[in-house]
Amino acid sequence: MSVINLPEFERGTVWLTGAGPGDPGLLTLLSVKGLQDADIILYDALVNESILELAPHAEKTFVGKRAGVRSAKQPEITALMIKYAKEGKRVLRLKGGDPFVFGRGGEEVMELATAGIHFRVIPGITSGIGGLAYASIPATHRDINCVVSFITGHDSAGELPPDIAWDGLAKSSQVMIFYMALRTLHEIVENLTKHGLPANTPIAVISNATTENQEVRETTLENAAEILNPPKPKSPAIIIIGESVKIRGLIKEFQQTISHNSTALINGIKAVDF
Amino acid sequence: MSVINLPEFERGTVWLTGAGPGDPGLLTLLSVKGLQDADIILYDALVNESILELAPHAEKTFVGKRAGVRSAKQPEITALMIKYAKEGKRVLRLKGGDPFVFGRGGEEVMELATAGIHFRVIPGITSGIGGLAYASIPATHRDINCVVSFITGHDSAGELPPDIAWDGLAKSSQVMIFYMALRTLHEIVENLTKHGLPANTPIAVISNATTENQEVRETTLENAAEILNPPKPKSPAIIIIGESVKIRGLIKEFQQTISHNSTALINGIKAVDF
Repeated sequence: MSVINLPEFERGTVWLTGAGPGDPGLLTLLSVKGLQDADIILYDALVNESILELAPHAEKTFVGKRAGVRSAKQPEITALMIKYAKEGKRVLRLKGGDPFVFGRGGEEVMELATAGIHFRVIPGITSGIGGLAYASIPATHRDINCVVSFITGHDSAGELPPDIAWDGLAKSSQVMIFYMALRTLHEIVENLTKHGLPANTPIAVISNATTENQEVRETTLENAAEILNPPKPKSPAIIIIGESVKIRGLIKEFQQTISHNSTALINGIKAVDF
Repeated sequence: MSVINLPEFERGTVWLTGAGPGDPGLLTLLSVKGLQDADIILYDALVNESILELAPHAEKTFVGKRAGVRSAKQPEITALMIKYAKEGKRVLRLKGGDPFVFGRGGEEVMELATAGIHFRVIPGITSGIGGLAYASIPATHRDINCVVSFITGHDSAGELPPDIAWDGLAKSSQVMIFYMALRTLHEIVENLTKHGLPANTPIAVISNATTENQEVRETTLENAAEILNPPKPKSPAIIIIGESVKIRGLIKEFQQTISHNSTALINGIKAVDF
Protein backbone atom coordinates (compact mmCIF):
# COMPACT_ATOMS: atom_id res chain seq x y z
CA MET A 1 0.00 0.00 0.00
CA SER A 2 1.29 3.41 -0.93
CA VAL A 3 0.20 6.80 0.24
CA ILE A 4 0.13 9.93 -1.88
CA ASN A 5 -1.21 13.36 -1.16
CA LEU A 6 -4.34 14.66 -2.80
CA PRO A 7 -5.95 18.02 -2.10
CA GLU A 8 -9.20 18.17 -0.20
CA PHE A 9 -12.37 18.84 -2.19
CA GLU A 10 -13.49 21.81 -0.13
CA ARG A 11 -17.11 22.79 0.37
CA GLY A 12 -18.24 25.71 -1.75
CA THR A 13 -15.70 25.09 -4.50
CA VAL A 14 -15.89 23.81 -8.06
CA TRP A 15 -13.64 21.15 -9.55
CA LEU A 16 -13.61 21.57 -13.32
CA THR A 17 -12.58 18.09 -14.29
CA GLY A 18 -11.60 16.29 -17.48
CA ALA A 19 -13.02 12.77 -17.73
CA GLY A 20 -10.71 11.78 -20.59
CA PRO A 21 -11.78 10.31 -23.92
CA GLY A 22 -13.87 7.40 -22.60
CA ASP A 23 -11.89 4.51 -21.15
CA PRO A 24 -12.37 4.77 -17.36
CA GLY A 25 -8.78 3.55 -17.00
CA LEU A 26 -7.69 6.96 -18.25
CA LEU A 27 -9.30 8.79 -15.33
CA THR A 28 -6.78 10.52 -13.10
CA LEU A 29 -6.62 9.88 -9.36
CA LEU A 30 -7.80 13.44 -8.80
CA SER A 31 -10.83 12.96 -11.02
CA VAL A 32 -11.75 9.74 -9.19
CA LYS A 33 -11.47 11.60 -5.89
CA GLY A 34 -13.66 14.35 -7.31
CA LEU A 35 -16.29 11.80 -8.34
CA GLN A 36 -16.22 10.14 -4.94
CA ASP A 37 -16.42 13.33 -2.88
CA ALA A 38 -18.72 15.55 -4.97
CA ASP A 39 -22.15 16.58 -3.76
CA ILE A 40 -23.28 17.69 -7.23
CA ILE A 41 -22.05 16.60 -10.66
CA LEU A 42 -22.83 18.62 -13.79
CA TYR A 43 -21.75 16.49 -16.75
CA ASP A 44 -21.53 16.88 -20.50
CA ALA A 45 -22.61 14.69 -23.40
CA LEU A 46 -19.06 13.52 -24.10
CA VAL A 47 -18.63 11.94 -20.68
CA ASN A 48 -18.72 8.13 -20.73
CA GLU A 49 -21.65 7.45 -18.42
CA SER A 50 -20.06 4.35 -16.89
CA ILE A 51 -17.70 6.80 -15.20
CA LEU A 52 -20.61 8.16 -13.17
CA GLU A 53 -20.84 4.82 -11.36
CA LEU A 54 -17.78 5.96 -9.45
CA ALA A 55 -19.98 8.65 -7.88
CA PRO A 56 -22.74 6.78 -6.08
CA HIS A 57 -23.45 9.59 -3.63
CA ALA A 58 -23.61 12.71 -5.80
CA GLU A 59 -26.66 14.29 -7.37
CA LYS A 60 -26.03 14.10 -11.14
CA THR A 61 -27.33 16.55 -13.71
CA PHE A 62 -26.85 16.16 -17.45
CA VAL A 63 -26.10 19.56 -19.01
CA GLY A 64 -24.81 18.60 -22.47
CA LYS A 65 -26.29 18.51 -25.94
CA ARG A 66 -27.89 15.45 -27.45
CA ALA A 67 -28.51 14.94 -31.15
CA GLY A 68 -27.49 18.52 -31.73
CA VAL A 69 -30.09 19.86 -29.30
CA ARG A 70 -28.51 21.82 -26.54
CA SER A 71 -30.36 20.98 -23.35
CA ALA A 72 -28.73 23.55 -21.12
CA LYS A 73 -27.21 26.81 -22.27
CA GLN A 74 -23.78 27.91 -21.12
CA PRO A 75 -25.07 30.76 -18.89
CA GLU A 76 -27.45 28.32 -17.19
CA ILE A 77 -24.64 25.86 -16.47
CA THR A 78 -22.48 28.61 -15.03
CA ALA A 79 -25.39 29.90 -12.94
CA LEU A 80 -25.95 26.38 -11.55
CA MET A 81 -22.28 25.98 -10.61
CA ILE A 82 -22.26 29.33 -8.83
CA LYS A 83 -25.57 28.65 -7.04
CA TYR A 84 -24.47 25.26 -5.72
CA ALA A 85 -21.01 26.50 -4.72
CA LYS A 86 -22.60 29.39 -2.81
CA GLU A 87 -24.77 26.84 -0.99
CA GLY A 88 -21.56 25.22 0.23
CA LYS A 89 -21.73 22.22 -2.07
CA ARG A 90 -18.76 20.46 -3.63
CA VAL A 91 -19.49 20.94 -7.32
CA LEU A 92 -17.90 18.64 -9.90
CA ARG A 93 -18.14 20.05 -13.41
CA LEU A 94 -17.31 17.03 -15.54
CA LYS A 95 -16.31 17.35 -19.19
CA GLY A 96 -15.12 14.85 -21.77
CA GLY A 97 -11.41 14.98 -22.58
CA ASP A 98 -9.59 17.95 -21.08
CA PRO A 99 -11.54 21.04 -19.96
CA PHE A 100 -9.01 23.43 -21.50
CA VAL A 101 -8.77 21.81 -24.96
CA PHE A 102 -11.78 23.02 -26.94
CA GLY A 103 -13.88 22.37 -23.85
CA ARG A 104 -14.77 25.98 -23.01
CA GLY A 105 -13.27 25.52 -19.57
CA GLY A 106 -11.56 28.89 -19.86
CA GLU A 107 -14.90 30.62 -20.18
CA GLU A 108 -16.35 28.77 -17.23
CA VAL A 109 -13.49 29.56 -14.86
CA MET A 110 -13.60 33.22 -15.89
CA GLU A 111 -17.26 33.29 -14.84
CA LEU A 112 -16.46 31.52 -11.57
CA ALA A 113 -13.64 33.96 -10.84
CA THR A 114 -15.92 36.92 -11.56
CA ALA A 115 -18.43 35.49 -9.07
CA GLY A 116 -15.67 35.02 -6.48
CA ILE A 117 -15.92 31.22 -6.46
CA HIS A 118 -12.76 29.21 -5.84
CA PHE A 119 -12.06 26.36 -8.21
CA ARG A 120 -9.55 23.75 -9.20
CA VAL A 121 -8.91 22.58 -12.77
CA ILE A 122 -8.27 18.84 -13.03
CA PRO A 123 -6.75 18.16 -16.45
CA GLY A 124 -7.88 15.09 -18.37
CA ILE A 125 -6.42 13.05 -21.20
CA THR A 126 -7.43 14.77 -24.43
CA SER A 127 -8.73 12.55 -27.24
CA GLY A 128 -6.37 14.19 -29.75
CA ILE A 129 -3.45 12.60 -27.90
CA GLY A 130 -4.83 9.66 -25.89
CA GLY A 131 -7.46 8.67 -28.42
CA LEU A 132 -4.84 8.66 -31.14
CA ALA A 133 -2.57 6.47 -29.03
CA TYR A 134 -5.27 3.80 -28.69
CA ALA A 135 -5.52 3.84 -32.48
CA SER A 136 -1.72 3.34 -32.75
CA ILE A 137 -1.05 6.86 -34.06
CA PRO A 138 1.55 8.92 -32.18
CA ALA A 139 0.83 12.66 -31.98
CA THR A 140 4.54 13.26 -32.60
CA HIS A 141 7.32 11.18 -34.09
CA ARG A 142 10.86 12.43 -34.45
CA ASP A 143 11.17 11.47 -38.11
CA ILE A 144 7.83 13.06 -39.00
CA ASN A 145 7.03 16.21 -37.07
CA CYS A 146 8.44 18.80 -34.71
CA VAL A 147 5.08 20.61 -34.68
CA VAL A 148 1.62 19.20 -33.99
CA SER A 149 -1.45 21.42 -34.15
CA PHE A 150 -4.87 20.95 -32.60
CA ILE A 151 -7.71 22.68 -34.39
CA THR A 152 -11.39 22.87 -33.60
CA GLY A 153 -13.63 21.75 -36.45
CA HIS A 154 -16.46 24.09 -35.59
CA ASP A 155 -17.19 27.44 -34.03
CA SER A 156 -20.19 28.37 -31.91
CA ALA A 157 -22.41 28.35 -35.02
CA GLY A 158 -21.31 24.80 -35.90
CA GLU A 159 -19.30 26.00 -38.90
CA LEU A 160 -15.57 25.81 -39.62
CA PRO A 161 -13.99 28.75 -37.76
CA PRO A 162 -13.47 31.53 -40.33
CA ASP A 163 -10.14 32.66 -38.87
CA ILE A 164 -8.06 29.56 -39.57
CA ALA A 165 -5.00 30.60 -41.62
CA TRP A 166 -4.91 27.58 -43.91
CA ASP A 167 -1.77 28.59 -45.77
CA GLY A 168 0.18 28.96 -42.53
CA LEU A 169 -1.22 25.74 -41.13
CA ALA A 170 -0.39 23.75 -44.27
CA LYS A 171 3.15 25.14 -44.23
CA SER A 172 3.97 24.70 -40.56
CA SER A 173 2.03 21.78 -39.12
CA GLN A 174 3.27 18.42 -40.30
CA VAL A 175 0.56 16.76 -38.24
CA MET A 176 -2.89 18.28 -37.67
CA ILE A 177 -5.55 17.00 -35.35
CA PHE A 178 -9.10 18.28 -35.80
CA TYR A 179 -11.70 18.01 -33.03
CA MET A 180 -15.40 17.50 -33.81
CA ALA A 181 -14.83 17.99 -37.51
CA LEU A 182 -16.92 15.31 -39.26
CA ARG A 183 -19.36 17.90 -40.56
CA THR A 184 -16.65 20.20 -41.86
CA LEU A 185 -14.32 17.49 -43.23
CA HIS A 186 -14.92 18.39 -46.89
CA GLU A 187 -13.97 22.01 -46.32
CA ILE A 188 -10.90 21.09 -44.30
CA VAL A 189 -9.61 18.80 -47.04
CA GLU A 190 -10.39 21.37 -49.73
CA ASN A 191 -8.56 24.13 -47.86
CA LEU A 192 -5.46 22.03 -47.14
CA THR A 193 -5.27 20.68 -50.68
CA LYS A 194 -5.56 24.19 -52.09
CA HIS A 195 -2.67 25.26 -49.88
CA GLY A 196 -0.29 22.58 -51.01
CA LEU A 197 -0.84 19.40 -49.01
CA PRO A 198 -0.12 16.48 -51.37
CA ALA A 199 -3.07 14.37 -52.54
CA ASN A 200 -1.50 11.27 -50.97
CA THR A 201 -1.23 12.77 -47.47
CA PRO A 202 -2.69 10.18 -45.05
CA ILE A 203 -5.84 10.98 -43.13
CA ALA A 204 -7.64 8.99 -40.44
CA VAL A 205 -10.83 9.40 -38.48
CA ILE A 206 -11.24 7.83 -35.07
CA SER A 207 -14.76 7.51 -33.68
CA ASN A 208 -15.51 6.79 -30.04
CA ALA A 209 -11.80 6.69 -29.27
CA THR A 210 -10.66 4.43 -26.38
CA THR A 211 -14.11 2.87 -25.93
CA GLU A 212 -15.27 -0.60 -26.94
CA ASN A 213 -16.96 1.07 -29.92
CA GLN A 214 -13.75 2.66 -31.19
CA GLU A 215 -13.61 2.66 -34.98
CA VAL A 216 -10.73 3.84 -37.17
CA ARG A 217 -10.87 4.59 -40.91
CA GLU A 218 -7.83 5.54 -42.96
CA THR A 219 -7.36 6.92 -46.44
CA THR A 220 -5.61 9.81 -48.24
CA LEU A 221 -6.63 13.42 -48.80
CA GLU A 222 -7.70 12.77 -52.40
CA ASN A 223 -10.02 9.99 -51.24
CA ALA A 224 -11.16 11.68 -48.03
CA ALA A 225 -14.83 11.60 -49.05
CA GLU A 226 -14.71 7.79 -48.60
CA ILE A 227 -14.26 8.30 -44.89
CA LEU A 228 -17.87 9.43 -44.68
CA ASN A 229 -19.23 6.43 -46.62
CA PRO A 230 -22.23 4.76 -45.00
CA PRO A 231 -22.47 3.66 -42.33
CA LYS A 232 -21.29 7.13 -41.36
CA PRO A 233 -18.60 7.35 -38.70
CA LYS A 234 -20.07 8.06 -35.29
CA SER A 235 -19.54 11.21 -33.29
CA PRO A 236 -17.47 12.08 -31.29
CA ALA A 237 -14.63 11.74 -33.77
CA ILE A 238 -11.09 12.98 -34.11
CA ILE A 239 -9.53 13.56 -37.53
CA ILE A 240 -5.78 13.34 -38.01
CA ILE A 241 -3.93 14.46 -41.11
CA GLY A 242 -0.24 13.70 -41.61
CA GLU A 243 2.36 11.01 -42.17
CA SER A 244 2.09 9.68 -38.62
CA VAL A 245 -1.12 7.91 -39.64
CA LYS A 246 1.13 5.43 -41.48
CA ILE A 247 2.73 4.31 -38.22
CA ARG A 248 -0.57 2.67 -37.35
CA GLY A 249 -0.09 0.09 -40.08
CA LEU A 250 3.42 -0.68 -38.87
CA ILE A 251 2.60 -1.26 -35.22
CA LYS A 252 -1.06 -2.09 -34.76
CA GLU A 253 -0.51 -5.83 -34.97
CA PHE A 254 1.57 -5.62 -31.79
CA GLN A 255 -0.41 -3.04 -29.91
CA GLN A 256 -2.77 -4.65 -27.47
CA THR A 257 -6.42 -3.99 -28.09
CA ILE A 258 -8.55 -1.89 -25.84
CA SER A 259 -10.40 -4.95 -24.53
CA HIS A 260 -10.81 -4.86 -20.79
CA ASN A 261 -10.10 -8.22 -19.31
CA SER A 262 -9.71 -7.73 -15.60
CA THR A 263 -11.44 -5.76 -12.91
CA ALA A 264 -10.26 -3.07 -10.56
CA LEU A 265 -11.73 -2.17 -7.22
CA ILE A 266 -11.68 1.57 -6.78
CA ASN A 267 -12.25 1.85 -3.08
CA GLY A 268 -8.91 3.09 -1.90
CA ILE A 269 -8.85 6.64 -3.11
CA LYS A 270 -10.22 8.46 -0.15
CA ALA A 271 -9.27 11.46 1.88
CA VAL A 272 -7.69 10.71 5.22
CA ASP A 273 -6.88 13.60 7.50
CA PHE A 274 -3.51 13.57 9.20
CA MET B 1 -17.11 0.93 -3.75
CA SER B 2 -17.22 0.92 -7.50
CA VAL B 3 -15.81 -1.56 -9.91
CA ILE B 4 -14.36 -0.75 -13.29
CA ASN B 5 -12.56 -2.91 -15.79
CA LEU B 6 -8.86 -2.59 -16.38
CA PRO B 7 -6.82 -4.77 -18.72
CA GLU B 8 -4.45 -7.32 -17.28
CA PHE B 9 -0.73 -6.48 -17.37
CA GLU B 10 0.32 -9.65 -19.17
CA ARG B 11 3.71 -11.30 -18.75
CA GLY B 12 6.12 -10.67 -21.59
CA THR B 13 4.54 -7.34 -22.56
CA VAL B 14 5.58 -3.71 -22.27
CA TRP B 15 3.39 -0.90 -20.99
CA LEU B 16 4.69 2.38 -22.36
CA THR B 17 3.25 4.72 -19.80
CA GLY B 18 2.98 8.47 -19.30
CA ALA B 19 3.53 9.58 -15.72
CA GLY B 20 2.12 13.07 -16.33
CA PRO B 21 3.85 16.34 -15.51
CA GLY B 22 4.65 15.66 -11.85
CA ASP B 23 1.67 15.81 -9.49
CA PRO B 24 0.93 12.17 -8.57
CA GLY B 25 -2.78 13.12 -8.53
CA LEU B 26 -2.54 13.33 -12.32
CA LEU B 27 -1.60 9.67 -12.69
CA THR B 28 -4.23 7.64 -14.50
CA LEU B 29 -5.76 4.50 -13.00
CA LEU B 30 -4.02 2.47 -15.71
CA SER B 31 -0.63 3.95 -14.86
CA VAL B 32 -1.14 3.18 -11.16
CA LYS B 33 -2.05 -0.39 -12.07
CA GLY B 34 1.07 -0.58 -14.23
CA LEU B 35 3.21 0.61 -11.32
CA GLN B 36 1.64 -1.88 -8.93
CA ASP B 37 1.89 -4.91 -11.24
CA ALA B 38 5.21 -4.32 -13.04
CA ASP B 39 8.19 -6.58 -12.54
CA ILE B 40 10.62 -4.08 -14.08
CA ILE B 41 10.38 -0.30 -14.39
CA LEU B 42 12.60 1.64 -16.78
CA TYR B 43 12.08 5.32 -15.98
CA ASP B 44 13.19 8.64 -17.39
CA ALA B 45 14.62 11.77 -15.81
CA LEU B 46 11.34 13.66 -16.09
CA VAL B 47 9.45 11.21 -13.90
CA ASN B 48 8.64 12.56 -10.44
CA GLU B 49 10.42 10.01 -8.24
CA SER B 50 7.73 10.08 -5.55
CA ILE B 51 5.59 8.24 -8.09
CA LEU B 52 7.90 5.24 -7.85
CA GLU B 53 6.73 4.70 -4.28
CA LEU B 54 3.57 3.29 -5.82
CA ALA B 55 5.69 0.41 -7.13
CA PRO B 56 7.21 -1.22 -4.05
CA HIS B 57 7.71 -4.60 -5.72
CA ALA B 58 9.29 -3.74 -9.07
CA GLU B 59 12.97 -3.59 -9.92
CA LYS B 60 13.59 0.04 -10.94
CA THR B 61 16.19 1.22 -13.42
CA PHE B 62 16.90 4.85 -14.22
CA VAL B 63 17.53 5.27 -17.94
CA GLY B 64 17.29 9.05 -18.39
CA LYS B 65 19.78 11.85 -18.73
CA ARG B 66 21.00 13.91 -15.83
CA ALA B 67 22.70 17.29 -16.13
CA GLY B 68 22.80 16.77 -19.86
CA VAL B 69 24.67 13.49 -19.57
CA ARG B 70 22.78 10.67 -21.14
CA SER B 71 23.20 7.64 -18.92
CA ALA B 72 21.56 5.13 -21.22
CA LYS B 73 21.30 5.42 -24.98
CA GLN B 74 18.05 4.81 -26.82
CA PRO B 75 19.17 1.50 -28.40
CA GLU B 76 20.23 0.25 -24.96
CA ILE B 77 16.83 1.12 -23.46
CA THR B 78 15.05 -0.62 -26.29
CA ALA B 79 17.31 -3.65 -25.96
CA LEU B 80 16.54 -3.84 -22.23
CA MET B 81 12.78 -3.68 -22.83
CA ILE B 82 12.97 -6.45 -25.40
CA LYS B 83 15.26 -8.62 -23.23
CA TYR B 84 13.00 -8.39 -20.16
CA ALA B 85 9.81 -8.91 -22.17
CA LYS B 86 11.32 -12.02 -23.77
CA GLU B 87 12.10 -13.30 -20.28
CA GLY B 88 8.37 -13.07 -19.54
CA LYS B 89 8.59 -9.99 -17.34
CA ARG B 90 5.95 -7.25 -17.12
CA VAL B 91 7.96 -4.24 -18.29
CA LEU B 92 6.82 -0.74 -17.39
CA ARG B 93 8.51 1.92 -19.53
CA LEU B 94 7.74 5.10 -17.60
CA LYS B 95 8.10 8.53 -19.19
CA GLY B 96 7.28 12.02 -17.96
CA GLY B 97 4.18 13.59 -19.53
CA ASP B 98 2.71 11.64 -22.43
CA PRO B 99 4.85 9.08 -24.29
CA PHE B 100 3.61 10.25 -27.70
CA VAL B 101 4.15 14.00 -27.20
CA PHE B 102 7.83 14.67 -27.83
CA GLY B 103 8.60 11.59 -25.77
CA ARG B 104 9.98 9.37 -28.52
CA GLY B 105 7.35 6.76 -27.69
CA GLY B 106 6.70 6.25 -31.39
CA GLU B 107 10.27 5.14 -31.95
CA GLU B 108 10.19 2.78 -29.00
CA VAL B 109 6.98 1.02 -30.05
CA MET B 110 8.29 0.66 -33.61
CA GLU B 111 11.29 -1.17 -32.19
CA LEU B 112 9.09 -3.34 -30.00
CA ALA B 113 6.84 -4.19 -32.95
CA THR B 114 9.86 -5.10 -35.07
CA ALA B 115 11.00 -7.45 -32.31
CA GLY B 116 7.53 -9.00 -32.11
CA ILE B 117 6.85 -7.74 -28.57
CA HIS B 118 3.29 -6.86 -27.64
CA PHE B 119 2.75 -3.56 -25.88
CA ARG B 120 0.15 -1.15 -24.60
CA VAL B 121 0.46 2.64 -24.67
CA ILE B 122 -0.93 4.33 -21.55
CA PRO B 123 -1.36 8.02 -22.32
CA GLY B 124 -0.41 10.58 -19.68
CA ILE B 125 -1.30 14.20 -19.04
CA THR B 126 1.08 16.28 -21.13
CA SER B 127 2.65 19.29 -19.43
CA GLY B 128 1.71 21.55 -22.34
CA ILE B 129 -1.94 21.13 -21.36
CA GLY B 130 -2.04 20.00 -17.72
CA GLY B 131 0.97 22.01 -16.61
CA LEU B 132 -0.52 25.11 -18.17
CA ALA B 133 -3.82 24.50 -16.39
CA TYR B 134 -2.08 24.47 -12.99
CA ALA B 135 -0.59 27.84 -13.94
CA SER B 136 -4.11 29.15 -14.80
CA ILE B 137 -3.46 29.27 -18.56
CA PRO B 138 -5.98 27.48 -20.80
CA ALA B 139 -4.50 25.84 -23.90
CA THR B 140 -7.54 27.05 -25.82
CA HIS B 141 -10.09 29.77 -25.23
CA ARG B 142 -12.92 30.49 -27.63
CA ASP B 143 -12.23 34.22 -27.82
CA ILE B 144 -8.50 33.69 -28.38
CA ASN B 145 -7.66 30.65 -30.48
CA CYS B 146 -9.12 27.95 -32.69
CA VAL B 147 -5.61 26.51 -33.21
CA VAL B 148 -3.00 25.56 -30.61
CA SER B 149 0.37 24.20 -31.66
CA PHE B 150 2.88 22.16 -29.71
CA ILE B 151 6.47 22.51 -30.83
CA THR B 152 9.63 20.85 -29.58
CA GLY B 153 12.33 23.31 -28.57
CA HIS B 154 15.19 21.04 -29.55
CA ASP B 155 16.15 18.29 -31.96
CA SER B 156 18.43 15.35 -31.25
CA ALA B 157 21.47 17.66 -31.33
CA GLY B 158 19.92 19.94 -28.70
CA GLU B 159 19.33 22.72 -31.23
CA LEU B 160 16.11 24.31 -32.45
CA PRO B 161 14.74 21.99 -35.18
CA PRO B 162 15.76 23.48 -38.54
CA ASP B 163 12.51 22.54 -40.27
CA ILE B 164 10.13 24.76 -38.32
CA ALA B 165 8.24 26.97 -40.80
CA TRP B 166 8.19 30.13 -38.70
CA ASP B 167 6.16 32.20 -41.12
CA GLY B 168 3.41 29.59 -41.25
CA LEU B 169 3.46 29.10 -37.50
CA ALA B 170 3.26 32.84 -36.80
CA LYS B 171 0.33 33.15 -39.20
CA SER B 172 -1.73 30.16 -38.10
CA SER B 173 -1.11 29.42 -34.44
CA GLN B 174 -2.64 31.95 -32.11
CA VAL B 175 -1.22 30.02 -29.17
CA MET B 176 2.11 28.17 -29.26
CA ILE B 177 3.47 25.86 -26.61
CA PHE B 178 7.16 24.97 -26.73
CA TYR B 179 8.57 21.95 -24.91
CA MET B 180 12.09 21.97 -23.45
CA ALA B 181 12.90 25.28 -25.05
CA LEU B 182 14.75 27.31 -22.39
CA ARG B 183 18.03 27.00 -24.28
CA THR B 184 16.52 28.03 -27.60
CA LEU B 185 14.20 30.76 -26.26
CA HIS B 186 16.16 33.62 -27.83
CA GLU B 187 15.96 32.09 -31.29
CA ILE B 188 12.26 31.30 -30.93
CA VAL B 189 11.46 34.88 -29.99
CA GLU B 190 13.65 36.25 -32.79
CA ASN B 191 12.00 34.03 -35.39
CA LEU B 192 8.45 34.83 -34.31
CA THR B 193 9.11 38.56 -34.08
CA LYS B 194 10.67 38.54 -37.55
CA HIS B 195 7.54 36.86 -38.89
CA GLY B 196 5.11 39.35 -37.51
CA LEU B 197 4.22 38.54 -33.93
CA PRO B 198 3.63 41.86 -32.13
CA ALA B 199 6.22 42.96 -29.56
CA ASN B 200 3.55 42.98 -26.85
CA THR B 201 2.50 39.35 -27.37
CA PRO B 202 2.44 37.71 -23.92
CA ILE B 203 4.89 34.93 -23.10
CA ALA B 204 5.17 32.78 -20.02
CA VAL B 205 7.55 30.11 -18.82
CA ILE B 206 6.43 27.46 -16.36
CA SER B 207 9.13 25.48 -14.56
CA ASN B 208 8.43 22.24 -12.69
CA ALA B 209 4.77 22.45 -13.62
CA THR B 210 2.26 20.89 -11.18
CA THR B 211 4.89 20.20 -8.52
CA GLU B 212 5.47 22.05 -5.27
CA ASN B 213 8.39 23.78 -7.01
CA GLN B 214 6.24 25.14 -9.83
CA GLU B 215 7.36 28.62 -10.86
CA VAL B 216 5.73 30.87 -13.46
CA ARG B 217 7.24 33.97 -15.07
CA GLU B 218 5.37 36.21 -17.48
CA THR B 219 6.41 39.00 -19.80
CA THR B 220 6.07 40.04 -23.46
CA LEU B 221 8.02 39.04 -26.55
CA GLU B 222 10.03 42.29 -26.56
CA ASN B 223 11.15 41.64 -22.98
CA ALA B 224 11.52 37.89 -23.29
CA ALA B 225 15.19 37.97 -22.28
CA GLU B 226 14.04 38.91 -18.76
CA ILE B 227 12.54 35.50 -18.37
CA LEU B 228 16.04 34.05 -18.16
CA ASN B 229 17.20 36.53 -15.51
CA PRO B 230 19.03 34.93 -12.59
CA PRO B 231 18.11 32.84 -10.81
CA LYS B 232 17.53 31.03 -14.09
CA PRO B 233 14.24 29.16 -14.47
CA LYS B 234 14.64 25.49 -13.72
CA SER B 235 14.24 22.72 -16.24
CA PRO B 236 11.88 21.08 -17.18
CA ALA B 237 10.03 24.11 -18.47
CA ILE B 238 7.18 24.82 -20.84
CA ILE B 239 7.02 28.10 -22.78
CA ILE B 240 3.70 29.49 -23.92
CA ILE B 241 3.28 32.36 -26.37
CA GLY B 242 -0.11 33.95 -27.01
CA GLU B 243 -2.94 36.01 -25.57
CA SER B 244 -4.17 33.19 -23.35
CA VAL B 245 -1.31 33.97 -20.95
CA LYS B 246 -3.36 37.03 -19.91
CA ILE B 247 -6.15 34.83 -18.56
CA ARG B 248 -3.79 33.84 -15.76
CA GLY B 249 -3.96 37.33 -14.30
CA LEU B 250 -7.74 37.31 -14.45
CA ILE B 251 -8.33 34.01 -12.67
CA LYS B 252 -5.32 33.01 -10.60
CA GLU B 253 -6.63 34.62 -7.44
CA PHE B 254 -9.53 32.17 -7.47
CA GLN B 255 -7.71 29.07 -8.68
CA GLN B 256 -6.75 26.86 -5.80
CA THR B 257 -3.05 26.32 -5.37
CA ILE B 258 -1.34 23.04 -5.98
CA SER B 259 -0.78 22.50 -2.28
CA HIS B 260 -1.57 18.97 -1.23
CA ASN B 261 -3.53 18.93 1.97
CA SER B 262 -5.01 15.50 2.36
CA THR B 263 -3.83 11.97 1.84
CA ALA B 264 -5.05 9.17 -0.38
CA LEU B 265 -4.54 5.50 0.16
CA ILE B 266 -3.88 3.81 -3.12
CA ASN B 267 -4.50 0.22 -2.26
CA GLY B 268 -7.68 -0.51 -4.15
CA ILE B 269 -6.49 -0.60 -7.70
CA LYS B 270 -5.74 -4.23 -8.14
CA ALA B 271 -6.58 -6.89 -10.62
CA VAL B 272 -9.23 -9.35 -9.54
CA ASP B 273 -9.92 -12.31 -11.76
CA PHE B 274 -13.54 -13.18 -12.36
